[in-house]
Amino acid sequence: MDALFSDRIRDVPRSFIREILKVTMDRQMISFAGGLPNRQFFPVQQLQKACERVFAVRGGDCLQYSNSEGLIELRRYIARRYKTVQGISLDPDQILITNGSQQALDLIAKATLNDGDPVIIEEPGYLGAIQALSLYRPAFLPVAVDDEGIDVQGLANAINSRPKMMYTVPNFQNPSGISYSQEVRKQVAGLVAGSGCLLIEDDPYGALRFKGTPVDSFFHFLPGQTILLGSFSKIVVPGFRLGWVAAPETILEKLLVAKQASDLHTCNFTQYVILEYLHNNDIDGHIKTICDAYGNQCRAMIDAIEREFPADVHCTRPEGGMFLWGKLPEPVSSLALFDKAVERKVVFVPGEPFYTRKVRTSAFRLNFSCVDESVINDGIARLAEAIRSLQLDQR
Amino acid sequence: MDALFSDRIRDVPRSFIREILKVTMDRQMISFAGGLPNRQFFPVQQLQKACERVFAVRGGDCLQYSNSEGLIELRRYIARRYKTVQGISLDPDQILITNGSQQALDLIAKATLNDGDPVIIEEPGYLGAIQALSLYRPAFLPVAVDDEGIDVQGLANAINSRPKMMYTVPNFQNPSGISYSQEVRKQVAGLVAGSGCLLIEDDPYGALRFKGTPVDSFFHFLPGQTILLGSFSKIVVPGFRLGWVAAPETILEKLLVAKQASDLHTCNFTQYVILEYLHNNDIDGHIKTICDAYGNQCRAMIDAIEREFPADVHCTRPEGGMFLWGKLPEPVSSLALFDKAVERKVVFVPGEPFYTRKVRTSAFRLNFSCVDESVINDGIARLAEAIRSLQLDQR
Repeated sequence: MDALFSDRIRDVPRSFIREILKVTMDRQMISFAGGLPNRQFFPVQQLQKACERVFAVRGGDCLQYSNSEGLIELRRYIARRYKTVQGISLDPDQILITNGSQQALDLIAKATLNDGDPVIIEEPGYLGAIQALSLYRPAFLPVAVDDEGIDVQGLANAINSRPKMMYTVPNFQNPSGISYSQEVRKQVAGLVAGSGCLLIEDDPYGALRFKGTPVDSFFHFLPGQTILLGSFSKIVVPGFRLGWVAAPETILEKLLVAKQASDLHTCNFTQYVILEYLHNNDIDGHIKTICDAYGNQCRAMIDAIEREFPADVHCTRPEGGMFLWGKLPEPVSSLALFDKAVERKVVFVPGEPFYTRKVRTSAFRLNFSCVDESVINDGIARLAEAIRSLQLDQR
Repeated sequence: MDALFSDRIRDVPRSFIREILKVTMDRQMISFAGGLPNRQFFPVQQLQKACERVFAVRGGDCLQYSNSEGLIELRRYIARRYKTVQGISLDPDQILITNGSQQALDLIAKATLNDGDPVIIEEPGYLGAIQALSLYRPAFLPVAVDDEGIDVQGLANAINSRPKMMYTVPNFQNPSGISYSQEVRKQVAGLVAGSGCLLIEDDPYGALRFKGTPVDSFFHFLPGQTILLGSFSKIVVPGFRLGWVAAPETILEKLLVAKQASDLHTCNFTQYVILEYLHNNDIDGHIKTICDAYGNQCRAMIDAIEREFPADVHCTRPEGGMFLWGKLPEPVSSLALFDKAVERKVVFVPGEPFYTRKVRTSAFRLNFSCVDESVINDGIARLAEAIRSLQLDQR
């Protein structure tokens, strides 16, 4: 049977996340493993109203085949928002609507990567990107991230290998929660400029800042080399699968060919619905509500960590997003901690899947967007117990 | 700039269909070029009701991230329908919901094809399949189709090249409108059986039979080697982008990995809506309404062709679907006819894009699903004039 399959699909490991999801079916389990936005903030009634209006105004038009680019009105909205929020000037024709920004990654890889092409990726990096890109068999050049962003010296070395692209989540990164400082962005841009390397800026969490001040997009430093990915998943709803990619026009044209070959176009009904929703609701007010809640939950988690965890466990201090990243000082695998945690009915995502290489890491990801303060306190206390138990075993 | 792009994307030609769409913006133009279902039959009110109920019953659940397989209730519905309509037994876990069946093609290619793998394709063949598969750089083995199905001797030769898959639209094929006879299906199955070649049966039009009697799916002959593709686009609405693939479990597992990497999952809101629609409406009655209309339109087109076209122009006689296929006896390119037709304000799709090789063909595709009888009569008369004018030039 194995002869049936492509080399690319045989190389992809089974997702560990799926295995974790099975464990979380246990209702007693406290889960910091998820990566979901909090459904408490889904604007259900407003979207229902938007649906009604779309049916009333558009009738069958919203249900027919449509163009591969996506609705022009929605692309104009996205372009305007880039301008007002970030001062980024884009033509709507530089924007392609995708099935979530995950699909944008697939299309970019499809349009640019040959087998073995070098690709710079953050270490740890976003699991979905590792999966999407892996299927195009690149030679990953992992570069470490720390609390200020990517390791600039490591990046300089990687750039020498003439990479096709660098993939980055510079704001509240998944999994680490860290953001690139303005200074690191400048240095990165200096290294990437003129190198022939595309910079893929994936920014699903950028709007979810609950602390500190916004930092410039790489687009400001590298307008001709930056591809921007965005999504409505974290600020409206993820179930509609609506994201986008914005790129220089010569690149967008190729992404469009890839999109057409991949699935013709994104569901146009939900595009009309979200457009209607955006036109008739205060999206900034809505985002602020989400940010306030996630900010409180993050603070509660950090407070609990400071109270409960041994002092030598390092944790990041996110200023936004949905995740933070912990690391034990012991040279143990986070998988060992995972087993201890499951015994105490609490789960997280171990660090290993966020690496493109086979590594053993004591790091782990904690999600704070879907848990309230009392659950956080309880879960962090259980996790602290698991850590202490593991540390005892180690001695 | 070209150095940025992958070899696969550079090989894909610009879609001629897009160029045609520009011409059809002219409101005076009669178009037989489209490939759209007739929106007159979109169940707009029923889908609106279904939306309301989904919001009322599911609330935010229908808007959260979901699983990559698609809704289990929808996959159960599809499995039941295969059983009742075609006598095909499938486990719902053998079914994966995709963004239209176009995406299923992309996933199958992603999971099975290495560069240069031989792939059998019908000639002429479905343009979307040629595009989707081309991006995985197969070695196409085109085999001619005639009024009874694929050329069996040509297929026997192609099988000798040990192809990875054979792609077929056995019912009311796009572009030709022809169907495989039961006898041809048996012979094809005999050749494919045990050859290690997957048979991809794409069946978007199968339900749209307006004449003759149903013929068996390849699944009945080759259950372990057949992958079935289906879609709600032609029987409900295309704008939702909902299709599926059904495959043996070992294959489905790989398609699932590809799906997850490509876009995580298909929009779950529209999955809930279509499920609600299917549970509360008479889909068979709805399909009959569509078939009756398309049948009348097809008959009107054939009548007009018999009345207007020179007797030596060959046209297929479809028993279902949305297309028929004409061919001039002269050794001219259908592109020359296209220019003559545009002058007379009527368009169709020239035959060339339906070939994987560079060919010159006098064949052309006519769509009858979106035009009523008076438009058909007018358009076919104009096209007959274009043909006569071209034939005069040839002498």
